[in-house]
Amino acid sequence: MNAGECWLRLRVRYVECDAMGYVHHSHYLTYFEMGRTELLRRGGISYRELETRGFFFVVVKISASYKRPARYDDELELLTRITNQTRVRIDHGYALYHADSRRLLCEAASTIACVDRDGKVVAIPDFLRSGI
Amino acid sequence: MNAGECWLRLRVRYVECDAMGYVHHSHYLTYFEMGRTELLRRGGISYRELETRGFFFVVVKISASYKRPARYDDELELLTRITNQTRVRIDHGYALYHADSRRLLCEAASTIACVDRDGKVVAIPDFLRSGI
Amino acid sequence: MNAGECWLRLRVRYVECDAMGYVHHSHYLTYFEMGRTELLRRGGISYRELETRGFFFVVVKISASYKRPARYDDELELLTRITNQTRVRIDHGYALYHADSRRLLCEAASTIACVDRDGKVVAIPDFLRSGI
Amino acid sequence: MNAGECWLRLRVRYVECDAMGYVHHSHYLTYFEMGRTELLRRGGISYRELETRGFFFVVVKISASYKRPARYDDELELLTRITNQTRVRIDHGYALYHADSRRLLCEAASTIACVDRDGKVVAIPDFLRSGI
Repeated sequence: MNAGECWLRLRVRYVECDAMGYVHHSHYLTYFEMGRTELLRRGGISYRELETRGFFFVVVKISASYKRPARYDDELELLTRITNQTRVRIDHGYALYHADSRRLLCEAASTIACVDRDGKVVAIPDFLRSGI
Repeated sequence: MNAGECWLRLRVRYVECDAMGYVHHSHYLTYFEMGRTELLRRGGISYRELETRGFFFVVVKISASYKRPARYDDELELLTRITNQTRVRIDHGYALYHADSRRLLCEAASTIACVDRDGKVVAIPDFLRSGI
Repeated sequence: MNAGECWLRLRVRYVECDAMGYVHHSHYLTYFEMGRTELLRRGGISYRELETRGFFFVVVKISASYKRPARYDDELELLTRITNQTRVRIDHGYALYHADSRRLLCEAASTIACVDRDGKVVAIPDFLRSGI
Repeated sequence: MNAGECWLRLRVRYVECDAMGYVHHSHYLTYFEMGRTELLRRGGISYRELETRGFFFVVVKISASYKRPARYDDELELLTRITNQTRVRIDHGYALYHADSRRLLCEAASTIACVDRDGKVVAIPDFLRSGI
């Protein structure tokens, strides 16, 4: 594992499952966000601290391909990786696995942009560039 | 109907239902919040405008009694009423009905307190007192 | 407007907004699902009835491009359209607008597949094909 | 710690925070549900297995008193305890603390009832009684 990727283990909550007993597809986006937060943290930076300093990240694009369903109480493993970076944007890739079977449940990609408190796009700060 | 109560009609979303096919009990609190927002609006005040002026309401207490389940795509009718008010707090009562059968699904009560941007309790502003 | 598209008006809920005051990007997927439900309903079919008959739709792919943020209490207009259909899958396209300004907030596309109660892909039933 | 209580550590997610930057009060109910799940698990029973066997628990009553806000990325400690039990119902008490400061954030109580697949109240099964 290098600085540009991290694994996160999580357990499916009851409230996240829909009437079919599967995790509702919208909640995967929350899992990916948790992956980005952990990736930052392991690089020595907390996203909360970033916001305190006036830097925010907004999701510009997201795409996901759902392969197999996740169910209530399943333990999942999420791999989050940085796949590209510019002066103002970061691309991430995600692969979500069932922890026991190691089967791939979902693959996804996102682009986030750095903005200030007013939502204006700004350059990613240097202290962050070194951390990610 | 008087200024201190209002009815709100809403339809149950798929994502709000759990593996039993019932609305997850936590989402009722969101319905109640929508009821409070509508009650304010019909009194001529938007909660968003309130926040812009530096006044926020935080939930201090809530209690709910669940009588019958609501299901996906059900249309519901929510009655929201002010039951008490002090200089800094407002108590609301809620009754949620199935729109077609008129059967009572849930009864609840909450207390909200007025705070400023830093979370300090402040007096409910006069322009709001007249509206609610 | 034809049978293959519909408009849905909705109001942003407080709980849907994040610490920036914007609608969290994951909730747009819920709006799109509401759009699909309405499109079915206006075609004379309720998704709930579909599930009762043993037909379910699962999201296979989704992609979204976020243009501008939506805020608490904003009224939004969602256009949902069928863009393609096979024996087992339906593709939808979405355009979400701010109701007052008519500015485009988000564009998205999804693919859903018809499955039975056990999650096995099955042909979309004929009574549904005529309705959509 | 005895069989009738357990501690659960959790971290606040970005999506759980509202425009004030605080955890939305409805999400605490999800935390409490996670506490109940963990309490069962440590008693040797998974709630998922219970549902497979045809036993479900529905929330009948809940009340919560919010003392202090929780914020994004905060680590929290939740104590879940069984406070009473009858043939068909279980009462739980909850105390949610900020992990670092040990300050109490929220106290709550709930009543859940055992039902079968059709929502009819049934006796809590014996194998469960011994586990909790």
